[in-house]
Amino acid sequence: MTSSTRRLPDQRPSRVIIDAVFPEIDDGRFPAKRTVGERFEVTAHIVSDGHDLVDAVLRLRPEAGGDWAEVHFEALGNDEYRARATARTPGRYRYTVEAWIDAYRSWATDLERRVMANWDIASELREGARFVEEAANRAGWPDAERLRVLAARLADESIPQLERASSALDPEYVALAALYPDRGNAARYDRELPLVIDSERARYGTWYEMFPRSQGTDPNRSATFREAAGRLPDIAAMGFDVLYLPPVHPIGTTKRKGRNNALEAAPGDPGSPWAIGGPEGGHTAVHPDLGTIEDFDWFVGEARNFGIDVALDIAFQCSPDHPWVHEHPEWFRHRPDGSIKYAENPPKRYEDVYPLDFDTEAWESLWTALLGVFEFWLDHGVKIFRVDNPHTKPFPFWEWLIGQIKAREPSALFLAEAFTRPKRMQALAKLGFDQSYSYFTWRNSKAEIVEYFTELTTPPVSEFMRANLFVNTPDILHEYLQVGGRPAFLVRATLAATLGPTYGIYSGFELCEGDPVPGTEEYADSEKYQVKVRDWDAPGNIKAEIS
Amino acid sequence: MTSSTRRLPDQRPSRVIIDAVFPEIDDGRFPAKRTVGERFEVTAHIVSDGHDLVDAVLRLRPEAGGDWAEVHFEALGNDEYRARATARTPGRYRYTVEAWIDAYRSWATDLERRVMANWDIASELREGARFVEEAANRAGWPDAERLRVLAARLADESIPQLERASSALDPEYVALAALYPDRGNAARYDRELPLVIDSERARYGTWYEMFPRSQGTDPNRSATFREAAGRLPDIAAMGFDVLYLPPVHPIGTTKRKGRNNALEAAPGDPGSPWAIGGPEGGHTAVHPDLGTIEDFDWFVGEARNFGIDVALDIAFQCSPDHPWVHEHPEWFRHRPDGSIKYAENPPKRYEDVYPLDFDTEAWESLWTALLGVFEFWLDHGVKIFRVDNPHTKPFPFWEWLIGQIKAREPSALFLAEAFTRPKRMQALAKLGFDQSYSYFTWRNSKAEIVEYFTELTTPPVSEFMRANLFVNTPDILHEYLQVGGRPAFLVRATLAATLGPTYGIYSGFELCEGDPVPGTEEYADSEKYQVKVRDWDAPGNIKAEIS
Repeated sequence: MTSSTRRLPDQRPSRVIIDAVFPEIDDGRFPAKRTVGERFEVTAHIVSDGHDLVDAVLRLRPEAGGDWAEVHFEALGNDEYRARATARTPGRYRYTVEAWIDAYRSWATDLERRVMANWDIASELREGARFVEEAANRAGWPDAERLRVLAARLADESIPQLERASSALDPEYVALAALYPDRGNAARYDRELPLVIDSERARYGTWYEMFPRSQGTDPNRSATFREAAGRLPDIAAMGFDVLYLPPVHPIGTTKRKGRNNALEAAPGDPGSPWAIGGPEGGHTAVHPDLGTIEDFDWFVGEARNFGIDVALDIAFQCSPDHPWVHEHPEWFRHRPDGSIKYAENPPKRYEDVYPLDFDTEAWESLWTALLGVFEFWLDHGVKIFRVDNPHTKPFPFWEWLIGQIKAREPSALFLAEAFTRPKRMQALAKLGFDQSYSYFTWRNSKAEIVEYFTELTTPPVSEFMRANLFVNTPDILHEYLQVGGRPAFLVRATLAATLGPTYGIYSGFELCEGDPVPGTEEYADSEKYQVKVRDWDAPGNIKAEIS
Repeated sequence: MTSSTRRLPDQRPSRVIIDAVFPEIDDGRFPAKRTVGERFEVTAHIVSDGHDLVDAVLRLRPEAGGDWAEVHFEALGNDEYRARATARTPGRYRYTVEAWIDAYRSWATDLERRVMANWDIASELREGARFVEEAANRAGWPDAERLRVLAARLADESIPQLERASSALDPEYVALAALYPDRGNAARYDRELPLVIDSERARYGTWYEMFPRSQGTDPNRSATFREAAGRLPDIAAMGFDVLYLPPVHPIGTTKRKGRNNALEAAPGDPGSPWAIGGPEGGHTAVHPDLGTIEDFDWFVGEARNFGIDVALDIAFQCSPDHPWVHEHPEWFRHRPDGSIKYAENPPKRYEDVYPLDFDTEAWESLWTALLGVFEFWLDHGVKIFRVDNPHTKPFPFWEWLIGQIKAREPSALFLAEAFTRPKRMQALAKLGFDQSYSYFTWRNSKAEIVEYFTELTTPPVSEFMRANLFVNTPDILHEYLQVGGRPAFLVRATLAATLGPTYGIYSGFELCEGDPVPGTEEYADSEKYQVKVRDWDAPGNIKAEIS
């Protein structure tokens, strides 16, 4: 072996090793999540050689830059350490760990053992005086002064050794010296991990879903936003603070579905709000039957007066009548014969809907337009978005889009409606969705609930995924509710409200509506395809129990 | 929001996300370990949006460079994937994962569902023909030819749709098309993880520890290497393949310990082999009473003739008589009065030993000299090193040193004698030690054994740490052996030999030697401080049972 191959490190590496820093999601690729005021706890393994003791800090700062704030770790034993912090401003942060040999405390611990062994400590006291003097040189007034007094005392051979040792071991002095360590050879964790601080609503809230068109008194026509606002006092009284509206856009007429999902609509059938777009506009228009965009703005303001945030459903798909179909045919998938492919999932066909083609060469204009949809509604006072089927669009698209929106509005909130496999739901949560629908509706036995909520509340999942425990949706009326009657509704509402900080109901739940299309989880006479007028104070309702 | 803030990615990101790649030790900072021929299994979570299927490969290559070898992952369900590989050459490797949408298989799966739903598939068959043609363009002869035949058939409208679908779904064709995917938009895992392939001996072996000076017939003098070689047939017959020798260097006379660790040695007491160094030399010399370096070389060769590798004990500490004490006083820690500090751990003192000062400013010359010690013995045919107390030296030093040695000799093997806290033992294993002493001697009840071996055999620990299950050492004679008699020795040997692939005994174990210094785990009349002559065929021995 020639000496040239014996390459030494450029400088002596730190004697301290930091690892197992937690939370750390996928090697720091994705952020841990907290909300304003929520405790952020970081643990790490910190080891060094020999008998010396280590000290360590958690370092935190805004991602955009600025000074690091530092919090000391406490030793938990077994080389495990823990630090806790709290952030008060929403946004993106970075955190990392720094650790070093605590020279003074190591010396003091050794000194104590020598005293217990009745050894001569003259040499050690001289050494200690030097440590304290060095700490003094790193300190400012008045601590420097106090440390110099201690150093002089330790070196004063006219004072009995045991009295000097007693000063050296005084916990107040040990703590003081620890404030001014030599961090020149500190170990720095080799990455700055991301942390997202969201607004409180990302973690805690109660959601109410309703079709505004059903909030009137005439089942033969759509109610307006002005009429729907009449429900706000009732919703506020039940304690809800988010009001989620299915798509409020114009609805296509081509291949429109009729009542109960009939293949052909009868005259006057309003169609599904998820068949988005018509001659009146697409994802940035409101259905004329609901009113104007000004009416929408007014509705959002009215809701706010009741302490309620309006959440919109963003469903990226188009009816054949959507303006984009003509303006941007390149955003859709075409068959070899040139026709556009409607949505299919054999044996099911959704002829009233064209999916967007994210594999298009024109992905840049498509992504930009879709971002524009969110920006439009942000400009109209909406900060909460329930995203329809995000798992059927590319995950990197969502990461980019949510990043763009949150850079503008850190308190924006995205709920993923992804009823799919666990790792795909988790991926969406990692890359930016604040909340996720869950399997809760299908977890009804005790064993199912224990198993599922153990998964949701155990790290690492609990570090990045927050479940929104909807008890029902327009698509999911579980058999438990179909057959269980009023007690079942009370049980499920109680579980949802207590198993997590965020839950929701789809309107009608409070009336214990439980009639299905037989053999399915669909509602009979589903509001998805017709206007449904109800007596919101019908006997047997559980409004008082919910609120 | 201005358009300048809507920055799009430079290119459309892959739709596939790869995460949870395992093994991955500390974000890839440390290597996973395998031995030649041992199965290397990698798992990953691979998710994508929508209904498309993914395909993925594990990629492996030598760290120095070269072509990637690829092994396909198999789907385990729930978005989990697994691939297996085996390496046949010791050394350092890198591995990573690449995944992409399997367009043909996704199309074929969709086609099958359409066929089952009795739908017209004319358009789909045209699409499929295009996929197959594209695959043909990526293939070479003869596969390209076979794919073109399939493409032509799929496009041939004179053939009934179902017959064409049947060809398209033929598993052989599906597999053939999968061999030539479009990987232009594949996802690549963002790091190349390290893997170390060690020689088989790093995982599998049986160790025998003996003091060569005790292998003669006269307790009043040291035996020589030539005499000690007389034990080799016996050791080989017991089935051992590593013969580990405590330090073979000159022993200091200053503050030499006497028999049974007496503070003062009597005339003729040989001293502890761990008090290394005298006027005759230090860590690169052999004790004159054992012979010359040529005798040592001869001994190593003789052992090899019996299929036995000699392992040396490397203990980085010096007797006050070691040449380095005079030649390199800067490598030792001095008291304020200028004297060198001997080893202390209050209330214990080790006056016959000076520790090396790794905090010295002269760390570069110290590290280089210590590396030279290993190089010296490597040049004398020793590839296996049992390192004394590595946890009292800086961890980065070992990472550097082992890296240097293994770059020269990949089959070198390092056993860490670190009886310390779990995370420190694990850190040493991560940064390069091939094997570790363990807590096995102190795990005697069933519950203790189950708990401890669950820890050792569970990932991630099992990915980087290999325990060498010594049943005793010159420092550890467990109470179980002190009081249990011959049955206890048989029980412990059986457990050690069956609970893991590597175990070891310190000589005398086969004679069921169990006399302690009362109240301690030290041997009475310990061989550490005196020559001990035994009858290796004494009645009651368990040599036949061990072999």
